[in-house]
Amino acid sequence: MNKDYLLQLLRNEQEATVSRRRYLHAHPELSFKEKETAAYITRFYENLGLPVQHCRNNYGLTVLIDSGKPGRTLALRADFDALPIQEDTGLPFASVNQGVMHACGHDAHTAYLMTVAACLARVKDSFNGKVLIIHQPAEEMAPGGAKGMIAEGVLDGVDTVMGCHFMSTMPCGKVFYHAGAVQHARSKFTIQVIGKGGHASLPEEANDAILIASELVVNLQSIISRRVASKESAVLTVGSFDGKGQFNIIKDQVTLEGDVRSMSDYTCQLIEEQVKRICHGLEEAYGCTIKVDYVTDYPVLVNDKNVTGEVVRILQAEQDLIPEITGIEDCGVLNPSEDFAYFAAERPACFFYIGAMPTGEVYPHHHPKFRLNEKSLQVAALAVGSVAWEYLQQK
Amino acid sequence: MNKDYLLQLLRNEQEATVSRRRYLHAHPELSFKEKETAAYITRFYENLGLPVQHCRNNYGLTVLIDSGKPGRTLALRADFDALPIQEDTGLPFASVNQGVMHACGHDAHTAYLMTVAACLARVKDSFNGKVLIIHQPAEEMAPGGAKGMIAEGVLDGVDTVMGCHFMSTMPCGKVFYHAGAVQHARSKFTIQVIGKGGHASLPEEANDAILIASELVVNLQSIISRRVASKESAVLTVGSFDGKGQFNIIKDQVTLEGDVRSMSDYTCQLIEEQVKRICHGLEEAYGCTIKVDYVTDYPVLVNDKNVTGEVVRILQAEQDLIPEITGIEDCGVLNPSEDFAYFAAERPACFFYIGAMPTGEVYPHHHPKFRLNEKSLQVAALAVGSVAWEYLQQK
Amino acid sequence: MNKDYLLQLLRNEQEATVSRRRYLHAHPELSFKEKETAAYITRFYENLGLPVQHCRNNYGLTVLIDSGKPGRTLALRADFDALPIQEDTGLPFASVNQGVMHACGHDAHTAYLMTVAACLARVKDSFNGKVLIIHQPAEEMAPGGAKGMIAEGVLDGVDTVMGCHFMSTMPCGKVFYHAGAVQHARSKFTIQVIGKGGHASLPEEANDAILIASELVVNLQSIISRRVASKESAVLTVGSFDGKGQFNIIKDQVTLEGDVRSMSDYTCQLIEEQVKRICHGLEEAYGCTIKVDYVTDYPVLVNDKNVTGEVVRILQAEQDLIPEITGIEDCGVLNPSEDFAYFAAERPACFFYIGAMPTGEVYPHHHPKFRLNEKSLQVAALAVGSVAWEYLQQK
Amino acid sequence: MNKDYLLQLLRNEQEATVSRRRYLHAHPELSFKEKETAAYITRFYENLGLPVQHCRNNYGLTVLIDSGKPGRTLALRADFDALPIQEDTGLPFASVNQGVMHACGHDAHTAYLMTVAACLARVKDSFNGKVLIIHQPAEEMAPGGAKGMIAEGVLDGVDTVMGCHFMSTMPCGKVFYHAGAVQHARSKFTIQVIGKGGHASLPEEANDAILIASELVVNLQSIISRRVASKESAVLTVGSFDGKGQFNIIKDQVTLEGDVRSMSDYTCQLIEEQVKRICHGLEEAYGCTIKVDYVTDYPVLVNDKNVTGEVVRILQAEQDLIPEITGIEDCGVLNPSEDFAYFAAERPACFFYIGAMPTGEVYPHHHPKFRLNEKSLQVAALAVGSVAWEYLQQK
Repeated sequence: MNKDYLLQLLRNEQEATVSRRRYLHAHPELSFKEKETAAYITRFYENLGLPVQHCRNNYGLTVLIDSGKPGRTLALRADFDALPIQEDTGLPFASVNQGVMHACGHDAHTAYLMTVAACLARVKDSFNGKVLIIHQPAEEMAPGGAKGMIAEGVLDGVDTVMGCHFMSTMPCGKVFYHAGAVQHARSKFTIQVIGKGGHASLPEEANDAILIASELVVNLQSIISRRVASKESAVLTVGSFDGKGQFNIIKDQVTLEGDVRSMSDYTCQLIEEQVKRICHGLEEAYGCTIKVDYVTDYPVLVNDKNVTGEVVRILQAEQDLIPEITGIEDCGVLNPSEDFAYFAAERPACFFYIGAMPTGEVYPHHHPKFRLNEKSLQVAALAVGSVAWEYLQQK
Repeated sequence: MNKDYLLQLLRNEQEATVSRRRYLHAHPELSFKEKETAAYITRFYENLGLPVQHCRNNYGLTVLIDSGKPGRTLALRADFDALPIQEDTGLPFASVNQGVMHACGHDAHTAYLMTVAACLARVKDSFNGKVLIIHQPAEEMAPGGAKGMIAEGVLDGVDTVMGCHFMSTMPCGKVFYHAGAVQHARSKFTIQVIGKGGHASLPEEANDAILIASELVVNLQSIISRRVASKESAVLTVGSFDGKGQFNIIKDQVTLEGDVRSMSDYTCQLIEEQVKRICHGLEEAYGCTIKVDYVTDYPVLVNDKNVTGEVVRILQAEQDLIPEITGIEDCGVLNPSEDFAYFAAERPACFFYIGAMPTGEVYPHHHPKFRLNEKSLQVAALAVGSVAWEYLQQK
Repeated sequence: MNKDYLLQLLRNEQEATVSRRRYLHAHPELSFKEKETAAYITRFYENLGLPVQHCRNNYGLTVLIDSGKPGRTLALRADFDALPIQEDTGLPFASVNQGVMHACGHDAHTAYLMTVAACLARVKDSFNGKVLIIHQPAEEMAPGGAKGMIAEGVLDGVDTVMGCHFMSTMPCGKVFYHAGAVQHARSKFTIQVIGKGGHASLPEEANDAILIASELVVNLQSIISRRVASKESAVLTVGSFDGKGQFNIIKDQVTLEGDVRSMSDYTCQLIEEQVKRICHGLEEAYGCTIKVDYVTDYPVLVNDKNVTGEVVRILQAEQDLIPEITGIEDCGVLNPSEDFAYFAAERPACFFYIGAMPTGEVYPHHHPKFRLNEKSLQVAALAVGSVAWEYLQQK
Repeated sequence: MNKDYLLQLLRNEQEATVSRRRYLHAHPELSFKEKETAAYITRFYENLGLPVQHCRNNYGLTVLIDSGKPGRTLALRADFDALPIQEDTGLPFASVNQGVMHACGHDAHTAYLMTVAACLARVKDSFNGKVLIIHQPAEEMAPGGAKGMIAEGVLDGVDTVMGCHFMSTMPCGKVFYHAGAVQHARSKFTIQVIGKGGHASLPEEANDAILIASELVVNLQSIISRRVASKESAVLTVGSFDGKGQFNIIKDQVTLEGDVRSMSDYTCQLIEEQVKRICHGLEEAYGCTIKVDYVTDYPVLVNDKNVTGEVVRILQAEQDLIPEITGIEDCGVLNPSEDFAYFAAERPACFFYIGAMPTGEVYPHHHPKFRLNEKSLQVAALAVGSVAWEYLQQK
């Protein structure tokens, strides 16, 4: 069996892949609650005679495809949770679960990987080492499903991890990559400003929490404008200023909530320190109490230069064999955060992007009308299958 | 009949006054909803054979005591509405109306004035001119009851208006006054900052309403610190910053509400202009929309110098006759606002203060444990009765 | 000898008073450098046979006029220094000293008081107690001349201190007063913000002192807007922001200088504490060094209620005798600061104002074209002479 | 003659190159005043029989080396001005010109390029097309020398431009590159805030320019923190806040000067618009006048992807032939701005970096102790000579 045979197997599954994706799309489940989705995936592998390992703490599951020969172990990861969004696509296979929707393409991630796994299993005699298929839950909700799976040892023995994301905003047919830091770390903070309430006409007897919190919002801007190097990519947003009160009563307490994105561990820690420093400083300046709760959810997603180089070289070399892939391009950094970052922090990894722009109106991810071009399922299956094949030729 | 006789009548009513005050205290009603209170007052006067005039637009009512001789007309005003506060005094005559409380002393204002009116009516042959008793509703809620009563012509033919306020924080037995501007004008503003929402990681595509509103709160401070003369008394409070949202979504819209106090028409207008100017400027600076709604509720309460002088001279001259009054003092300006200001804007007026500090713990007005010293009812009745008598001796 | 005789003496000196004032006007000297002025005043008294006491530490001098009888001791104070201003009045008796000008009326203060002293000395047999004439240098420059004179014991044995100030902006003929706090305390601060310089393109390696100092200026506004009671009169001005540098170098250091006015010791201390607190807080917030030097020059000038009442009653009672005085009015608080405050802090005092508005254009004090109406010299002499006479009638 | 021969020629010049560099180092001249430097370079070429073209408007000069055969024209550019810095290196060939120093390595740029030119001229029969040697003055001072040379047509007929910069902070032996935007555009702004002066105690009669300018500095931070995308590299520095005045006088006028760096034309224009918008907004908010002067000096330096790729491929292919070059690395973006950007805006270009870290202490560019490793001269000569040779082999 040679690579052409694998590609043929993958192509033969095209309709089945779409069909599985539609089933998953119609039956979305929220993060950490993906019981039926996990059962569906499990049945698929059991029907193929592939044993499934279940995680203890979440609905994550893995399938090991072992060539029986020595060699490297490649993990392929796809996420399978959905979002608390009411679907408004009008598709025939739209969500049947009220208020829940696969609006980020995890249905497609899961469907294409099931296909790749099934086909690789059929050609395992022709490669070396092992493939570990990782179906991960709860990418959309901190702390994410990856962290728990890694804690249970899912990466034991794994050399390299790969994964990909379908992008409705990038042209279908193309594969996109970027070496190095590619997706932001994400932190969340909650800041409580506790002043002292009072009558609007007697500010001298009170300590105005709204003014202090406003000064805080203003002062926080200086972190991005002056403390983060211009080469670094970082954002700090105060998304919530909970200071509703009465017009004629000085507000005693305000809660701010915010979000921080950063593209390196250094910057991530720098911003945390600076937020805390400014809060402490204004506490001293205004004689109030400012409590800060600061959590970093997802680290920076860093693509290993060598692994990414290997993926790109394989795909470039295959362009004649796989006309479905119409281009391989460096897309630079991307804004969202992604808990694949935890895998990439543990092993050399490459997370790349599958263009999936539909015909007609394009909606961003997390939109009630989000749609994918289903041709992208085939592109992903061929790309990932091909990369895995080549990766595992090495003895 | 001489003045001693009037004082004797007033002193005889002491227990009845307290009793009426307690009845009113137990049956408080909210501003503009004082139906039963007005009916109670009306019955009192009708039982005395004194005809009552009712206002059309609110529960205000007046009683005219006419000496039948030419002379000046003096209006005496008391307010009778209560507050949306759950009483927590434990008094035997505490409020029976859930969530409503006479926590500002209007029960006492009403009770003492009923006594003064009843007694003056019995001695009307001994003075000149007329006394107009004004029982006003809705002092606590803008636009207040005074405005509506004045619009119906309640001050037609009136030469001078007087009123007083019981103060739980000032020593019982004393009467306090201040000539000129004595209580702040009060303005209310609502500012809507309309930016553009977006994902926390993409501020460049949004327009962060929380940041703009925070800059606004900070910039507004400069009005008090730099635009209002240091001789002027003024306060600007942003009491509500309604910007609750999600930590990772840039907030599209924020509503601020605030309160402004000022002690002159000039300053009142100056601050309104400056608030609007700063809102407009930040709208330009940040390319957003900022809508301002600005209303001045109650004007500055200005005590006429001559009328106040007359009141002070009468009370000082009477100190031997009325040992219940232990002092007459200038208390300077006071912070709260008061819709007696509307009467004082129409006629020469004097609004003064009756010390009513209770024994034991003292709670400020508008507090659930607010209490008065009931001896102050007698002080007020004697002071106001005496002032009215002397005022009306003039032919 | 009766009071009419004293008034006659004072009126006889009218031309001589103007002449002395013009001589002083032509020969102004800067604060703490008034050697010739002191010598001129000394010669005047020595020619009259009145012994002069000289201060050791400044050019201040005193003359004691002793009735030889028991009684109260009244001190009358006038200041005699000039300002570093180039005169531009075109007056025939304009300053002959380049860049120095009596632009605040201290020439007039000195001239009228010399006249009052000379006349009182001639009628000393007709009053009781003593008059102490205080000619004080250096009112215009902190720490002022008063402080040093008091330290040398100039007020020993003095019961009461009086002084007055000519005002070019108030109508000539009138005398103005205000009981209680009448002129602001004045504080000066110097704040050094020490960050770290660097290349404009690398803010992450620097610590931008201009940004920190700007945040400081903004945050300082909140002291006046939120910490000082609205009844209090206070101003905080940052008058100097010394941050000149190169457009493309991050500034390492900025010096702010400012001025604070307050009308009570409580507020004066409150503002100092708050300035230091905010500086310390921003130091913590921005990880820089902020040094604060804060000095209160002149305290609040408080006029004693009894002494002021006595002065007003005397002047009101005299209005028929002294038609030159056309009115006595309460002028409320005045903005500038004045080191007479030190005398008033030590003894019951009254500092009042002599209207001195000239015909033609009116210029404020400290203006190169500042002019006085010289008729005010006679008003001051008669008012102060008369008050002293009455004050000293008491045994 | 083959390439080995060229490399040999270049290697033979090693000592002469160092010697010329030292001469130039000892005789630095300021931007736009490089008369003697230009004369020195001219003599060098004239001695070789190579005709020199002089620019009319600045001291720029060019030398054309024409193979006489058709082909591409490659321009090689080096800058030759020095900085207003007092040298403090203690080198035997330190600057003899007081207060002027080659502290940015332009002496080395000039010296290595003279060597390359001389050697290429000797092998011109062995390549096609032409080499244009550009010696440019005034890189350090806006508007720079490049702009004027381009205006005079220096790039007429040129296909490609290359240049390089020696970096004291990067390891000697290595060559660094980055494709795409590599050095920031630089803009300069001057903002005049015109309020109204006044006495520190009377802010209501003034309009405090220091407060307004401080608010401006604070508000400008939001441009970088919220308006520039996190992927973009941008810095805004207010480097000068010229607001020195007297502590007790409200400042009437303040001048701010600042520097803006951006890595794309879009961001460059965005920031200019936002600075102007915020200035206009605060003008409205504070009722003052704010004048903005905004100039973009140097555009973004963009390295053409194809040209950069060609340079990298040539150098990588040569690594055996040229052991002096120990590595070719992508260095990402660099912070400073550079007027080579103007050449790169006109023709496909590549600007790369020559590691020149000395042994011992390393000082950054523009430091009085700045030193280079002189071995880098040979690295540059071999790298640029080799690239030119290969580039011109194409017919």
